[in-house]
Amino acid sequence: MPSEFDIIRRHFSRPARQALLGTGDDAALLRPDAGAALAVSTDLLLEGRHFPTGAAPRALGHKALAVNLSDMAAMGATPCWATLALALPAADDAWIGEFAEGFYALAARYRVDLVGGDTTRGPLAICVTILGEVPEGLALMRGGARPGDDIWVSGALGGAALALHGAGGAAAARRLHEPEPRVELGERLRGIASAAIDVSDGFAQDLGHILERSGAGALVHYALLPKHPCDDAGLQQRCVLAGGDDYELAFTAPQGARAELEALAGTLGLALTRVGSMQRGEPRLQLLDAQGAAMAVPRGFDHFA
Amino acid sequence: MPSEFDIIRRHFSRPARQALLGTGDDAALLRPDAGAALAVSTDLLLEGRHFPTGAAPRALGHKALAVNLSDMAAMGATPCWATLALALPAADDAWIGEFAEGFYALAARYRVDLVGGDTTRGPLAICVTILGEVPEGLALMRGGARPGDDIWVSGALGGAALALHGAGGAAAARRLHEPEPRVELGERLRGIASAAIDVSDGFAQDLGHILERSGAGALVHYALLPKHPCDDAGLQQRCVLAGGDDYELAFTAPQGARAELEALAGTLGLALTRVGSMQRGEPRLQLLDAQGAAMAVPRGFDHFA
Repeated sequence: MPSEFDIIRRHFSRPARQALLGTGDDAALLRPDAGAALAVSTDLLLEGRHFPTGAAPRALGHKALAVNLSDMAAMGATPCWATLALALPAADDAWIGEFAEGFYALAARYRVDLVGGDTTRGPLAICVTILGEVPEGLALMRGGARPGDDIWVSGALGGAALALHGAGGAAAARRLHEPEPRVELGERLRGIASAAIDVSDGFAQDLGHILERSGAGALVHYALLPKHPCDDAGLQQRCVLAGGDDYELAFTAPQGARAELEALAGTLGLALTRVGSMQRGEPRLQLLDAQGAAMAVPRGFDHFA
Repeated sequence: MPSEFDIIRRHFSRPARQALLGTGDDAALLRPDAGAALAVSTDLLLEGRHFPTGAAPRALGHKALAVNLSDMAAMGATPCWATLALALPAADDAWIGEFAEGFYALAARYRVDLVGGDTTRGPLAICVTILGEVPEGLALMRGGARPGDDIWVSGALGGAALALHGAGGAAAARRLHEPEPRVELGERLRGIASAAIDVSDGFAQDLGHILERSGAGALVHYALLPKHPCDDAGLQQRCVLAGGDDYELAFTAPQGARAELEALAGTLGLALTRVGSMQRGEPRLQLLDAQGAAMAVPRGFDHFA
């Protein structure tokens, strides 16, 4: 059976091109850009909670990094480096190799270096910390939305949650198992968006964080929300409003940015949809149906609810 | 029951004094010192493996940060920021409060800001990522030891492992449950030590990493090793050589640094003991007993062995 040192040497020692020192010492050494702020975020994924028991290791390696890249996207940051802590029930060399392939393939697309980590035996758990850079003053924070700003959503919502219900087809399953972080979009929204968040716990709840931090309300038209297609309209509605794991960006921008954002959608080949507007007053989301009647706002995912 | 957002708000939202932005957004924003390298390390601690089921939460909060601070010490880096990802079997408010107290108390001593994290429900697991700064070119790497260099050890070895065996008394138990990271020592060793590592998996094994990276051997006199006191000499020997979790520093330095290191021990009020020397040749540890006879070199801890 390979030792933990064998595992690291064999699977997690690819050269770190943007680091002074990568894996293999007590710490990695990086040289962040002096003109940028360093953005840092961490996510812990557990078997049976964030992914099903027996999940394909390659997809898991992808997803563990993708959810962290999504946090960089939501901040308008360019991801640069990551660390990976891994608890594994056994030193299964083939499994670890596929996991590493999925992780490194996505990392290579965004030129992210894996610079450190930890491996231990235990119930399957994956903790990734991501570090990125964003020009100071241009980070997309949750608290920057102003009354009158438009509310936008990238891509389509609900796919990952539909897949959990066995609906939505292959595209939904891909969305659940190998989500596409909106890194380029986040970078391009610097200087345009007033606030942003990634949709990880459900659109209504995640937008709610922007409302709370910005101290303003929102009016959203359900009919305008970009939806993953599904024949069951009721299931679709629950998944679109409260389904997590889509990793699209929800963001706000001044009305004057509409033409620029429409052009950006074309450039990126990614739908950007205007779904409502920020309102003066309490941080409350008013959701209207196609007839203009108020809809109930569902809660999103809470790990302790 | 408190939600994950309540948990974060209530227990993990103390102000981050050295950060542009702390917890509560998609990522923290930091401004590292432009003249320094950024040191990054991560450790994952699991219940039943790294700490016993039912461990006191305050000590656990301390230890989770301490083992990461120890990595900064081994690098000669000054710790600055940390992220904390926590899987909890239940949202037990009192438990979380005590854990946070232990974590923040140690963080405050070293002026480390908790800037981000993640909470989820699951088997108790703690993943801390630490970020620190070290003047470029002065980091203490494992590969810098040269034949002829002295080998030094801080404090005393074996205490944590003795405590696991119910031996060594209260001091050993403290060493196991609330280890003291050697942060000041690491900082002061910049420009003096040629290589360093923290003793987390056992002295023989950890020193072995220095030998491998430095491409040199070592001669160590067992009688010289600073030992946690214990009446059972056999148990003591196993714990001193192969016991993990002590979080002392093992380091090498040119012979010309002896007087400086002896003075430093006085300044810090911390024993620094010269235990042997680096040798030309294969990266092999020769261990001699008091009669000068070769001793077997035990293996240290391997999570998959």
